[in-house]
Amino acid sequence: MDGTSERHGLTATAGLALLVAACAPAPPTSIGEQPPNIVIITADDLGYGDLASYGHPNIRTPHLDRMAEEGQRWTSFYAQAPVCSPSRAALLTGRVHLRSGMFGRRSAVFFPDSRAGLPDEEVTLAEALGDLGYATGIVGKWHLGHLPEYLPTRHGFDSWFGIPYSNDMDWHLPEGMANRTAYFDPEIDYWHVPIMRNEEEVERPADQNTLTERYAQEAVTFIESHPDQPFFLYLPHTMPHMPLFRSEAFEGHSSAGTYGDVIEEVDSAVGRVLETLKRLELAANTLVVFTSDNGPWTSFETHGGSAGPLRHGKGTTFEGGMRVPAIFWWPGTIEPGVTQAIGSAMDLFTTSISLAGGVVPTDRPIDGVDISPVLFGTGTTPRDTMAYYRMGELFAFRQGAYKVHFVTEGRYGLPPARTDHDPPLLFDLSVDPGERYDISAEQPATVTALVAAAERYQANMTMAEPLFDHRGG
Amino acid sequence: MDGTSERHGLTATAGLALLVAACAPAPPTSIGEQPPNIVIITADDLGYGDLASYGHPNIRTPHLDRMAEEGQRWTSFYAQAPVCSPSRAALLTGRVHLRSGMFGRRSAVFFPDSRAGLPDEEVTLAEALGDLGYATGIVGKWHLGHLPEYLPTRHGFDSWFGIPYSNDMDWHLPEGMANRTAYFDPEIDYWHVPIMRNEEEVERPADQNTLTERYAQEAVTFIESHPDQPFFLYLPHTMPHMPLFRSEAFEGHSSAGTYGDVIEEVDSAVGRVLETLKRLELAANTLVVFTSDNGPWTSFETHGGSAGPLRHGKGTTFEGGMRVPAIFWWPGTIEPGVTQAIGSAMDLFTTSISLAGGVVPTDRPIDGVDISPVLFGTGTTPRDTMAYYRMGELFAFRQGAYKVHFVTEGRYGLPPARTDHDPPLLFDLSVDPGERYDISAEQPATVTALVAAAERYQANMTMAEPLFDHRGG
Repeated sequence: MDGTSERHGLTATAGLALLVAACAPAPPTSIGEQPPNIVIITADDLGYGDLASYGHPNIRTPHLDRMAEEGQRWTSFYAQAPVCSPSRAALLTGRVHLRSGMFGRRSAVFFPDSRAGLPDEEVTLAEALGDLGYATGIVGKWHLGHLPEYLPTRHGFDSWFGIPYSNDMDWHLPEGMANRTAYFDPEIDYWHVPIMRNEEEVERPADQNTLTERYAQEAVTFIESHPDQPFFLYLPHTMPHMPLFRSEAFEGHSSAGTYGDVIEEVDSAVGRVLETLKRLELAANTLVVFTSDNGPWTSFETHGGSAGPLRHGKGTTFEGGMRVPAIFWWPGTIEPGVTQAIGSAMDLFTTSISLAGGVVPTDRPIDGVDISPVLFGTGTTPRDTMAYYRMGELFAFRQGAYKVHFVTEGRYGLPPARTDHDPPLLFDLSVDPGERYDISAEQPATVTALVAAAERYQANMTMAEPLFDHRGG
Repeated sequence: MDGTSERHGLTATAGLALLVAACAPAPPTSIGEQPPNIVIITADDLGYGDLASYGHPNIRTPHLDRMAEEGQRWTSFYAQAPVCSPSRAALLTGRVHLRSGMFGRRSAVFFPDSRAGLPDEEVTLAEALGDLGYATGIVGKWHLGHLPEYLPTRHGFDSWFGIPYSNDMDWHLPEGMANRTAYFDPEIDYWHVPIMRNEEEVERPADQNTLTERYAQEAVTFIESHPDQPFFLYLPHTMPHMPLFRSEAFEGHSSAGTYGDVIEEVDSAVGRVLETLKRLELAANTLVVFTSDNGPWTSFETHGGSAGPLRHGKGTTFEGGMRVPAIFWWPGTIEPGVTQAIGSAMDLFTTSISLAGGVVPTDRPIDGVDISPVLFGTGTTPRDTMAYYRMGELFAFRQGAYKVHFVTEGRYGLPPARTDHDPPLLFDLSVDPGERYDISAEQPATVTALVAAAERYQANMTMAEPLFDHRGG
């Protein structure tokens, strides 16, 4: 959907949304006449165990820890996919990525030779909030189509500063250099990813060493530019996706090596956003969310992150691949504490629109639910399931505490390869979050119930044409 | 050393300790005329990853989390041994357990048929603080010899309420019942461990369901009984050692099964101690420490705990076996935050005596160091090594970020059995706390340096006769 053309993606009731918001629970404190600002910050390939407040022994994340203490920390929050593009599509549309074609049979994400992108028909959170009077900006990695017609500015964002796809795409390696070598010895010249401002390429190759720092500065400038208008800022950091870069000030900042330096710089960047909101006295009217797009890229050993107590990481449908940190901050409004409620990045779409006084599109299935009752401490979320897809196929399904695996794969890019399970594996995540002890033989009735729930879920799933396979000239 | 006889274990300077405490750094706030109370709380087999503040996704530990927020959380703190008796001996004496004979060639801990105990010549923290005018009490599990001459009351404690050894000893199983079955279906009648008050058996079998609750009440009563005298309270909980028990109020309290219930009851018991100190206005003059005696007993699957991001658990010399949670609390005096300094349970001995204005015995090697500069935020600890022993043998050695393994074993009681490594395995714990990536081939010089450091350490180690093997009639 083109942000500059007529807004036809919302429902007929959207125009009334600022007046009548019947579906939106009232926040416990008055928000005055202006709806809350929304800031969604993501890290790239950050694992469940990579923050101090999620148990990392070596990486220091004081700003995120304080954000968690002042806000609400979720321990069962999921990215919608174990890799980048589908995860981001779901966050921005509130829909399972299959519905928008954000998957492939051969390719797992978009690449620099992709011919497709997020379809115009999709309604992004930027479009929905833009229609409600919000200023909208994205600072960071897009990865939903790099051709002009698919850029953020065509999907509801007023402005963009960042990179179009992952920082390891566009290789220009010296002859004979193995790509794995390059990942561990990152020279900027090896990677030719561009930096875009709106629809113009402004730097190529991107100086990735200063990327996190520049994102932070751009975010601060965006916030400072909207003192009187509600705003939506989407800040998808490029780091800690391999190859790792950090600014000079963070070289050796951490005791945990380059990976630790990178996370500590992201933490510092989050701190600058929160500090800006406090300084401008916007904190009491701004929801800030911090999460990750998928689990840690464990193929890169100590240059990848940690899923902490969870199994495996990026690319897999074990918990380590999709369960991620999620911290919600809105001083005076959010109930501080820790919640075990099941959440999905798709819920950010629905919840944000609800808080803004709008309603989600009703002309299409929306999978996100409104989690504001959990945030405000006034109720529960209707979500009690999680569907784990890999390349368009349902690999696993969670209902309540139980999870069945129909198919498993080992660590991303590493053995063991695909294994089909009949009967499926069964884990009780409440007592076994690390998915160590298969109890399918002990609890066949639970397996049967989960299989039936998964079948019901799949029966309601719509799948568009898979667009990640549209590649090449 | 008999608590009722002449105190001969301290050095000649100990009598002057209240007047001259040249070695003790001054706490940053005045402590008035009365030295601080010391409360050391341990859990039994609690893993590094079992508290919410150390990353557990399902177990709620709000009291310990608040204790950590108000206090100082250590991420590289070690029990001295991967099993019970030697770990406790080292905590109470400030000495490597080999020095006091607290090891065996065949037995790893004391059993109900043990004929030995902690030698009288050892100076316990209770004796040292008692000599400095402290009231001393132990509430909980002893496990340093159950015969009369080895009981807590003969080692400097004025009072004791608790059990003499582990809660799974003294089996009375129905004929034909496998002991593993009994562990998972705990009827009190299966286990005949007694409860002692001072030197009298007051209940047998112990009603273990109410043990954590009764320990909490005894601790509160002890604190309330000493409004005007400095006190040392040692509170070694029996839980979550298998078999698991919790009071009725905590059945189903957790979403994380019986193990979660048990931890949440221990958390509540810690909360009662802190609340009592606040209510009696003693918080500003009391150091409270919470830690564990070793890692989680993973042989029991979901009835055992989690080492979080660390490898393996109890009984092993991987990090999961010996690195444990450690939270220090002393409002207004301790610098709040997280520290990565290397700490040992042996340091509690030296630090406590220093804070009390005393000096440690100088007639014997003392391995604990004074960590109060770290606690107060005024300096560092001199400790940069950790020696990992199993059954009296040095299996692994850490210096700074690096750790070498000379010998490894798999999970406690499970394969793989003993494996000798020559050259030793080398891990960089700063970037690889999970000990996944052996870098001995890449860094042979580091291996050489660590081996030399371990040899120097061993050259200074004294080993007494191993006392755990003295068993039977």
